[in-house]
Amino acid sequence: MEKIRVFSPATVANVNCGFDVLGFALDGLGDELVLTKVDKPGIHIIKIVGASLSAKAEENVVGVAGLAMLDYLALDYGFEVEIYKNIRLGSGVGSSAASAAGIVYGINQFLETKLSNLELTKLGMKGEALASGNEHADNVAPCLYGGFTLITGYQPLNIVELPVPDELYATIIHPHIEIKTKEAREILPKEVSLQSAISQSGNLAGLVAGLYSSDYELIKDATKDALIEPYRKQLIPHFDALKKAALNAGGLAFGISGSGPSMFTLCKGEASAKAVETELNSKLQTVGLEADSYVSKVSKHGNKVIE
Amino acid sequence: MEKIRVFSPATVANVNCGFDVLGFALDGLGDELVLTKVDKPGIHIIKIVGASLSAKAEENVVGVAGLAMLDYLALDYGFEVEIYKNIRLGSGVGSSAASAAGIVYGINQFLETKLSNLELTKLGMKGEALASGNEHADNVAPCLYGGFTLITGYQPLNIVELPVPDELYATIIHPHIEIKTKEAREILPKEVSLQSAISQSGNLAGLVAGLYSSDYELIKDATKDALIEPYRKQLIPHFDALKKAALNAGGLAFGISGSGPSMFTLCKGEASAKAVETELNSKLQTVGLEADSYVSKVSKHGNKVIE
Repeated sequence: MEKIRVFSPATVANVNCGFDVLGFALDGLGDELVLTKVDKPGIHIIKIVGASLSAKAEENVVGVAGLAMLDYLALDYGFEVEIYKNIRLGSGVGSSAASAAGIVYGINQFLETKLSNLELTKLGMKGEALASGNEHADNVAPCLYGGFTLITGYQPLNIVELPVPDELYATIIHPHIEIKTKEAREILPKEVSLQSAISQSGNLAGLVAGLYSSDYELIKDATKDALIEPYRKQLIPHFDALKKAALNAGGLAFGISGSGPSMFTLCKGEASAKAVETELNSKLQTVGLEADSYVSKVSKHGNKVIE
Repeated sequence: MEKIRVFSPATVANVNCGFDVLGFALDGLGDELVLTKVDKPGIHIIKIVGASLSAKAEENVVGVAGLAMLDYLALDYGFEVEIYKNIRLGSGVGSSAASAAGIVYGINQFLETKLSNLELTKLGMKGEALASGNEHADNVAPCLYGGFTLITGYQPLNIVELPVPDELYATIIHPHIEIKTKEAREILPKEVSLQSAISQSGNLAGLVAGLYSSDYELIKDATKDALIEPYRKQLIPHFDALKKAALNAGGLAFGISGSGPSMFTLCKGEASAKAVETELNSKLQTVGLEADSYVSKVSKHGNKVIE
């Protein structure tokens, strides 16, 4: 095996009640990386399709995460990498995480002694830091593990894999507006009421229970966000109208993906997810907001080799 | 069936990361109620053993919860009740909840069409309100459902039953000091940092995942409390020393039961729970704190008919 093609999925972080700790992977949307093992040490980006990015390894998320892994393993060989970006930069569905997770997952395929997903996550976070300024795992982890992942701590990093009910789908809409992650951070309060913190944690616990028991009603009841959404929705025009449309069309839960501007709707079954997509596209047209939309099963596998 | 004896277990609310939303039932400690169906409508308390309480129905938790149920069902008969309190009042392991849950559970046994645990919880909460001033379910629910219960909302009341790993035990110590629930409430901050709220909710989600997957390491990692404990432990002398002793002796997690003064240690297996009990009793003696101690499996059933 000298050359492989890797699929690296888009991911939804936060998921309303799981701010900074929860995320899930999609199936139908993702980047692709082609890795060729070469004698020359280092990460050599030879092609970038779909985005305007630096091909210098030190200035590219793929490069930074890849170099971190080569360094960690003290490998004396390197990789030529072709990057096919299908996830738009800044869309809020883990574009940089897909790059970071994709390269470490890809390199791992060439190793005789494979690293664990936990180790890969730590290395992927190095690439994530280049894009966002800090090492966080809420997109990298679901990208690598697949399904829903819960981060229960960073020191040490601890990731819990949660089960995915079979019929759980997500509808994603990506309005063509820009939200800076920094701004989305700064808009948040430093302090919250104890009461709302408790209510939010009860909801997150309910969502986790709903995932374990495939209880769609519980998932619906619990996937709410009284803590973050009231602030961040101000950055997304027509958020309330879109939310109403998605829930009226049968969506279980609607919210901001990561720091936006993409929004997700969790749905039971593909038909429901498509009905929600139709309704949302109609509403987007009415309010005059240009957007892409996708329907995807919540992925159980995350990254995979496709060639 | 004209007369039954009901066991109503002690319960531990909050469980560190689940402030106001989580609770579990014990097996080895609880009150007993004897109910006799009589023609005369109302709740007639004919005997109270183990505590100094009013025998007037309107002034007694058993009476208030029982009357709420008779009223709700518009029953034209009543009950004579004997109350055997084994759970000390104000101990922090759900003494009033055991009374409230015990009577509604008991009355339910006499009905042809049984009420659900959810309905019983709502009625039990009426009794709880007499004791604590507000209707809350975090002790009443685990008492009735058994195991761990999660309250994901009050409007409407929604209770999620969580699974209990087979080897999960609790060691309870009840130091003979008094903590007023009101004071334990007032000592809490109205606002908390967003960061600590997120960390706490990640831990609660981790504990829920740990219960579903019988992952004792995860239960150990997650059952922490950075939000409430720093405040409330000030009301319990030697809290830190006791916590250290419990964890050093092999306890998975240690914390304040409800608003205290009782403290719980979660343990894997009975032997570990007994070792923790021995260590805690030794430490209690060293610091000169008088206390009772109990070891109990975490109950899977809650209330039960024993005669």
